[in-house]
Amino acid sequence: MNFRSDNEAGAHPAIIEAVSGAFRAGPVHSYGADEWTQKVERRLREIFDRPDLAAYPVATGTAANVLALACCCPPWGAIYCNPASHIAVDEANAPQFYTGGAKLVSIDGPAGKVDARKLAAALAEPVYGVVHHPQPAAVNISQATECGAAYSPEEIAAIASATHRHGLKLHMDGARFANALSFVGCTPAELSWKAGVDVLSLGATKNGALGADAVVFFNRELAETMRYRRRRAGHLFSKMRFLSIQLEAYVANDLWLRNARHANAMARRVRDGLAAIPSVRFRGPTEINFVLVALPQPIWDGLVAEGYSFSRRGAPSEGTIRIVCAFDTREEDVDELIATAKRYAADSLPIGARAG
Amino acid sequence: MNFRSDNEAGAHPAIIEAVSGAFRAGPVHSYGADEWTQKVERRLREIFDRPDLAAYPVATGTAANVLALACCCPPWGAIYCNPASHIAVDEANAPQFYTGGAKLVSIDGPAGKVDARKLAAALAEPVYGVVHHPQPAAVNISQATECGAAYSPEEIAAIASATHRHGLKLHMDGARFANALSFVGCTPAELSWKAGVDVLSLGATKNGALGADAVVFFNRELAETMRYRRRRAGHLFSKMRFLSIQLEAYVANDLWLRNARHANAMARRVRDGLAAIPSVRFRGPTEINFVLVALPQPIWDGLVAEGYSFSRRGAPSEGTIRIVCAFDTREEDVDELIATAKRYAADSLPIGARAG
Amino acid sequence: MNFRSDNEAGAHPAIIEAVSGAFRAGPVHSYGADEWTQKVERRLREIFDRPDLAAYPVATGTAANVLALACCCPPWGAIYCNPASHIAVDEANAPQFYTGGAKLVSIDGPAGKVDARKLAAALAEPVYGVVHHPQPAAVNISQATECGAAYSPEEIAAIASATHRHGLKLHMDGARFANALSFVGCTPAELSWKAGVDVLSLGATKNGALGADAVVFFNRELAETMRYRRRRAGHLFSKMRFLSIQLEAYVANDLWLRNARHANAMARRVRDGLAAIPSVRFRGPTEINFVLVALPQPIWDGLVAEGYSFSRRGAPSEGTIRIVCAFDTREEDVDELIATAKRYAADSLPIGARAG
Amino acid sequence: MNFRSDNEAGAHPAIIEAVSGAFRAGPVHSYGADEWTQKVERRLREIFDRPDLAAYPVATGTAANVLALACCCPPWGAIYCNPASHIAVDEANAPQFYTGGAKLVSIDGPAGKVDARKLAAALAEPVYGVVHHPQPAAVNISQATECGAAYSPEEIAAIASATHRHGLKLHMDGARFANALSFVGCTPAELSWKAGVDVLSLGATKNGALGADAVVFFNRELAETMRYRRRRAGHLFSKMRFLSIQLEAYVANDLWLRNARHANAMARRVRDGLAAIPSVRFRGPTEINFVLVALPQPIWDGLVAEGYSFSRRGAPSEGTIRIVCAFDTREEDVDELIATAKRYAADSLPIGARAG
Repeated sequence: MNFRSDNEAGAHPAIIEAVSGAFRAGPVHSYGADEWTQKVERRLREIFDRPDLAAYPVATGTAANVLALACCCPPWGAIYCNPASHIAVDEANAPQFYTGGAKLVSIDGPAGKVDARKLAAALAEPVYGVVHHPQPAAVNISQATECGAAYSPEEIAAIASATHRHGLKLHMDGARFANALSFVGCTPAELSWKAGVDVLSLGATKNGALGADAVVFFNRELAETMRYRRRRAGHLFSKMRFLSIQLEAYVANDLWLRNARHANAMARRVRDGLAAIPSVRFRGPTEINFVLVALPQPIWDGLVAEGYSFSRRGAPSEGTIRIVCAFDTREEDVDELIATAKRYAADSLPIGARAG
Repeated sequence: MNFRSDNEAGAHPAIIEAVSGAFRAGPVHSYGADEWTQKVERRLREIFDRPDLAAYPVATGTAANVLALACCCPPWGAIYCNPASHIAVDEANAPQFYTGGAKLVSIDGPAGKVDARKLAAALAEPVYGVVHHPQPAAVNISQATECGAAYSPEEIAAIASATHRHGLKLHMDGARFANALSFVGCTPAELSWKAGVDVLSLGATKNGALGADAVVFFNRELAETMRYRRRRAGHLFSKMRFLSIQLEAYVANDLWLRNARHANAMARRVRDGLAAIPSVRFRGPTEINFVLVALPQPIWDGLVAEGYSFSRRGAPSEGTIRIVCAFDTREEDVDELIATAKRYAADSLPIGARAG
Repeated sequence: MNFRSDNEAGAHPAIIEAVSGAFRAGPVHSYGADEWTQKVERRLREIFDRPDLAAYPVATGTAANVLALACCCPPWGAIYCNPASHIAVDEANAPQFYTGGAKLVSIDGPAGKVDARKLAAALAEPVYGVVHHPQPAAVNISQATECGAAYSPEEIAAIASATHRHGLKLHMDGARFANALSFVGCTPAELSWKAGVDVLSLGATKNGALGADAVVFFNRELAETMRYRRRRAGHLFSKMRFLSIQLEAYVANDLWLRNARHANAMARRVRDGLAAIPSVRFRGPTEINFVLVALPQPIWDGLVAEGYSFSRRGAPSEGTIRIVCAFDTREEDVDELIATAKRYAADSLPIGARAG
Repeated sequence: MNFRSDNEAGAHPAIIEAVSGAFRAGPVHSYGADEWTQKVERRLREIFDRPDLAAYPVATGTAANVLALACCCPPWGAIYCNPASHIAVDEANAPQFYTGGAKLVSIDGPAGKVDARKLAAALAEPVYGVVHHPQPAAVNISQATECGAAYSPEEIAAIASATHRHGLKLHMDGARFANALSFVGCTPAELSWKAGVDVLSLGATKNGALGADAVVFFNRELAETMRYRRRRAGHLFSKMRFLSIQLEAYVANDLWLRNARHANAMARRVRDGLAAIPSVRFRGPTEINFVLVALPQPIWDGLVAEGYSFSRRGAPSEGTIRIVCAFDTREEDVDELIATAKRYAADSLPIGARAG
């Protein structure tokens, strides 16, 4: 059973159907001049309760992140982010490439979050206008984080406050925005622009799409150069309907929230099940759709022997694995995972300690 | 009726089916470690008769072109191409972005081709190793060209000879490679590496796919940095199967050639029909799937009034339009286009000159 | 005797003295906060009759050109220039590097000039806002040109008119601005901003300095990001006085004009002398400080044998050399050059044709 | 009295003389083909006891650093450095600009040093060849550091060992290399390539030059692309003699070491003098030519009132200043500084606590 990544899941039937239908529908305008692309923008305006929002579909989360950041940060700028953030460790320097050379500055915090107080202290350094120093330009937060935590609107607002006080822009990497939204239980607006987010990478790929993200600007001025940036990066699709129709199907009928809720619930079920096993150590919260955990070696080995797969996180010596659930993870598969883990846990006990 | 662009066509049912099936198939490895991605490379090796070929799927033609060129050309390099080439006028400086600042040098030639003799003369200039001058690094040709012409293997070989004599690399923009192949009637190998092509952008999007291109390296050394370049550009798909399965379906059962043959034939039918109308002036060859033509204003106006759409090419004063056929253009629609054009042609004649 | 390049000349004693003095003067503020740097800006404001002019000293002509252009042109922009311009052929892609990937577009014209009508036609193409096409952003002209010609204020105004009509900016590469000014005989203002120049690279290196250029902005808005751009390129000197004092001494007491006038006159003397020799063919005007000429082989060989040095220009088959005079070229050396050339010319005549 | 920066000092008379002489000497080859440039390379080969060393003069320390790093690190690479290093905080993202987007990774250590053990641990992370992660490519150390400490050959060797074990390159920012060399008391070779340094930025500007640095490659392969990189950055001087002659004069007759020894001794004298004042707190070692110190406010205010100037370091709340000595700092000025500080220290004591 594959619990390795939500990137390895298939796609939701409703999204597959929508894409198939769109491509059987005959010719439409290319490069985003089609009706679907206009429609998805209108739809996002309703969902985010923001009539002037601008949305730019792209195919990958990295493209969304770095195009958004490039609209916020000049080549001589600095982007503040958690050292575990996707842009810092998983995008092969794409942020530097797209911004023309910005610097990433680490701001620590619990569970992959940017600590608002540390951020405020860093932004208070008197570097503004001093030509030698990278100029503070943007703050990046992952909602939810790479460590499994979701920001509350209040946490975001605290970060946004420090960010805007110094004229920086706030970018939210929402590769798992729907999962965070499900956990926090507020409106999309409350979790984004009302809390101070300027631009959002709204991910769909990990939550049921074939491959689609939208760069959602709440601040239209930031979007001024976006269309040129996307085109010159080779990220403007000629058959744009492919991206737009996915996004449309993704938010239609609350599919995104239903998918996310399910994935979150499955991860919660994994955690609750593992929590019953002594010597299992969790390595972070499980607020979204995965569990970071250190399993005793016999359990780990047993699960692998039974065909389960996970991904390792952090330094090998830490023994941490990530167990990821997706929109299509089945309850019975989770239950079997837990049962198998428990079996290996029991086997590994000293004989006298075993039940019965 | 839409004769505007092969980018506006839908996708071939066989490719839609393949994608749908792949995404219903449950989890597979992400980022290209899946079996489909390996399979399409194997398949391309057979088709191109080249067991050491390396293929990298990407989503857009621009991504394919500029990642390929970046593997061939350092930031201080020069890329020689026809001034009408896609990389020069239609990619918003993506070649400069991805190479880190290469210079594009224009080499004229008939119908959008690079003239081999002019190229040889340009490459003979004593700039090699002279630190002030952009260093000649790559030659780019479009197969087929933006003006509707296909290179023969001999023409490519002549260009390759000049290219390699000076140590440059030859890149072929094959956004319409299948159309060219159908016209020329040789093997894929003869039209690419056997003629001296080092790296090929093999397009599928314009010929029946939803969105897929492959960067095909015949020279593996050139590919050394490709995986890092693709990743840092945000062009590595997590759900890579989306790209690979399209390419696999595209070349399976000769679909690519059947699609291209049909589109070419339809364009030929358009041309032959229009040729019967006096005062119609063709603006280039019709060796592939489109016709460049200057229509008398009454015909043009009439067609537009009847709901036909085309795209304008070149300066407005030239009055040139491009009539594009695709894999799904229907013969009866072409015939109706011609009939309509002829009707307006007749109407526009002085009354005494009209038939009967 | 060295007639190879004005870059090979020494420096004028007044400038050497000024530099020596400045560096013996003890500590001053670094990075341009010194009084000399402020003074040279004030001085340039007077000379150019423009109280809001902003000047940024740098060390090389390439740095001046490409920092100026980067302030005018976004990464997806196009810069229009003569194909023989320094930025196109002699700066190793520095314009592309500094702009983040702009495209250079060739506009022909006589003697290295940009033809205003061809420029206007090119700028009239309907590419504005069309995301695929490089966006027209700047025009570059060399004053004087690499072929020895100087633009009149009227010629510049015609170019500026087309440039500004479409919202582009006009950059003047003034590596030999003083030479052009001496030839044209107008004020610095008339030859720059009054004719429509937005930003000027004012060169001093070729005309008596050790190494100094100033980027002179007539349009202050363009300069907004300049200080960050200069710093991140490593072109901000800690001991900035070195640059500023040179520029100050350069324009003090009309030194720049006196130097340029002398160099121009020497080149004129070379030309007039050579003109008397039959079969000498000039390859361009001699409006500034060099002569482009095709010498009969015996004369060329003879001069080289006697220790004269020049540089070759263009393709070797053309046989064109550039004879350059500098601020310190001596009249007697020119006269000897001419006499030597005439001697070899006479020797190379058929015996019967020689003078008695 | 100015104790603000060694960048604010003038230049040493011997270097001024040499430059003046070189520029009065008439024409020489441009762009580094002159004899002085060749001579300085030969001289550095002797001094560093390394016959295959390659040296490239440039005008600024930033240019030297970032051109060197660009030769070591691809755009998708990571550069490890102390968070207080010049490249990280004082070069306006020039490293990212010149490398095409590399990432800087912080490795802490005492007094601005890279801790070899922390570096080894960071480099042991299994990211090599994993396409998502920035690829470890180079390590940067400042010799001496921005906090006043010099590395011993053994410390460098420990860093080099971890660096080379993983195939990275070691770059030394030697803006104050001479000061470090004077402190450590070994040979230039022992403090560079014999300890494992691959490429050195050898600074002269802060130690008596007008403006000159050399990029010194001990590993010639690294230098392969250097000439193109320097040219396209606008850092190749046409009148290169200006840089070469400075460097030549700088190392001739041990001038560099004499200058550095003096500056170091003056800083030591400052420190020893201040150490006698109670409540003065030093903020780092004084192994080279400056003192980092927190002065009681009355002393600080008093010194400023008397016309002394320093620069503040770190966050304003820390109250740390940097007192810098240069090659031309006079002993009597140091003594007066100390006497003045002591006077204000005495004044600030409670009346009963004052001497007699």
